[in-house]
Amino acid sequence: MNYKSELLKAQQRITHYIHNTPILTSHLLDEISDCNLFFKCENFQKMGAFKMRGALNAILQLSDEQKAKGVVTHSSGNFAQAVALSAKMLGITAYIVMPKNAPKVKKDAVLGYGGIIIESDSTPIARELKAAEVIKEKEATFIHPSNDIPVIIGQGTAALELLKEQPNLEAIIAPVGGGGLLSGTALSAHFFGNNCKIYAGEPFEADDAYRSLKSGKIESNKTTNTIADGLRTQLGSNTFPIIQNYVSEIIRVSEDEIITAMKLVWERLKIIIEPSSAVAFAAILKNKELFKDKKVGVILSGGNVDLSNLPF
Amino acid sequence: MNYKSELLKAQQRITHYIHNTPILTSHLLDEISDCNLFFKCENFQKMGAFKMRGALNAILQLSDEQKAKGVVTHSSGNFAQAVALSAKMLGITAYIVMPKNAPKVKKDAVLGYGGIIIESDSTPIARELKAAEVIKEKEATFIHPSNDIPVIIGQGTAALELLKEQPNLEAIIAPVGGGGLLSGTALSAHFFGNNCKIYAGEPFEADDAYRSLKSGKIESNKTTNTIADGLRTQLGSNTFPIIQNYVSEIIRVSEDEIITAMKLVWERLKIIIEPSSAVAFAAILKNKELFKDKKVGVILSGGNVDLSNLPF
Repeated sequence: MNYKSELLKAQQRITHYIHNTPILTSHLLDEISDCNLFFKCENFQKMGAFKMRGALNAILQLSDEQKAKGVVTHSSGNFAQAVALSAKMLGITAYIVMPKNAPKVKKDAVLGYGGIIIESDSTPIARELKAAEVIKEKEATFIHPSNDIPVIIGQGTAALELLKEQPNLEAIIAPVGGGGLLSGTALSAHFFGNNCKIYAGEPFEADDAYRSLKSGKIESNKTTNTIADGLRTQLGSNTFPIIQNYVSEIIRVSEDEIITAMKLVWERLKIIIEPSSAVAFAAILKNKELFKDKKVGVILSGGNVDLSNLPF
Repeated sequence: MNYKSELLKAQQRITHYIHNTPILTSHLLDEISDCNLFFKCENFQKMGAFKMRGALNAILQLSDEQKAKGVVTHSSGNFAQAVALSAKMLGITAYIVMPKNAPKVKKDAVLGYGGIIIESDSTPIARELKAAEVIKEKEATFIHPSNDIPVIIGQGTAALELLKEQPNLEAIIAPVGGGGLLSGTALSAHFFGNNCKIYAGEPFEADDAYRSLKSGKIESNKTTNTIADGLRTQLGSNTFPIIQNYVSEIIRVSEDEIITAMKLVWERLKIIIEPSSAVAFAAILKNKELFKDKKVGVILSGGNVDLSNLPF
């Protein structure tokens, strides 16, 4: 696959449906970090996260016949909302497999965007089986939250926009969960950056990607006790090799470090980001030597936070 | 005084020292409010609030001799930080009279911007006496947080920028405390708007401006038990007549209404605003009929919030 041309085509394809999100800078955060930070603010993206990019890029490439039968995904987070809203914008049906015990606020968000919720038990296997049922019954097209190539390419358009405005970034860092954002970001940085290195931040409490790079095979998490709820998933067959090829280092951070970084962004940039978004910035704060005096892009992945449940 | 030309001159004078802050919109908040909202985001202003505009406009007009002797103000809030930072940017000394019992976080912010703190007792009279001492002893120039004309004019430049981008606003609403922001906003809307009406939001718990408009004289607050800590002050000899002349209505809101509005902005716009900033938006939500289907500018005055002390 020609990733370079796919990224450019994706950018063209989705541009009228998404926001070209702002890039914020802060003298104070630069001082604290000892480098020059460029925050790509996907918290201002439609439905509040970068996931819109991948969902739209995937759905827009379906045939009319596929569109008529609808799409299905399994997610209890931002990707569920992204697929529901993308489908609504394009006038097609979205079936969202969610665990029975998913928070009401998340179910309401999907319903608010017109998605049809199909409940499953909360294990990964149960939700995959339920998705398979829907695929069979409705002939709907399955879209994986992170491992489908069109999703990966779509997520990469955030870094593409960032590099268009800041072509001389020396590094870009993104959080890693399923790896869709990280692998898309890595492709953009590799093909459109000027010797731009790729890093990732990951919670210690769900460090499957870090361990996967060490062992050379996809590792799982036994537990995922992290506040960064978007990063509890594991790498897939497509995201893993891209990350192996293009990512220099995955930096792990503690829960306290995530919360400190999130609070700094709220206080200094005056914007709301979700804990998963703070993981990349936390990784910079933890490894100042690595980024010292460099121009560093930071993908702030989203801003969907339950304010009734703050960690400070 | 030719307010129109003073506003334009102020804009020129301060433009290189401040941010032309972004104007945000939100379909969701428009739906909730039944009107088209244009949020002027002074939470992204330097030091996190519109107060920079007035402080700079006042200090930049001092003579070299005055600048050499420094400036003094009394404030425990954003104006203290604004004078300290403005003075630092211009290389002059700032004496800030603050109550002994002011929160450490506020004192630290002033010290961080290089201001010299002079402690006083916490009554309005005590702080004015202490400021008078500093004026006499240091021959420093006093700058009032809201009632000085150059301060009022400076604060009006936020609305001036807003109207430049959105010339056909039918209404602009700002919060009212001492009235510096509101009177400056009113002047800009009157002289540069296209039949643009001016409204204000004010907490019930500190509704001196509302009562002043009713009675025709400047009223005080006996108590000020409001979360909107920037709005606890009262109108002055300059702000009151401007507000009498140009403001259509002051809309009072409860503490719950302020918190609900603040939370909506945090959740939907993904930005941090302080409670005082939420008062204007709360007033719109309370009076939807008044603003129905109109293009309404909202001055989001600042974003300096103590995150350890959230009301939700």
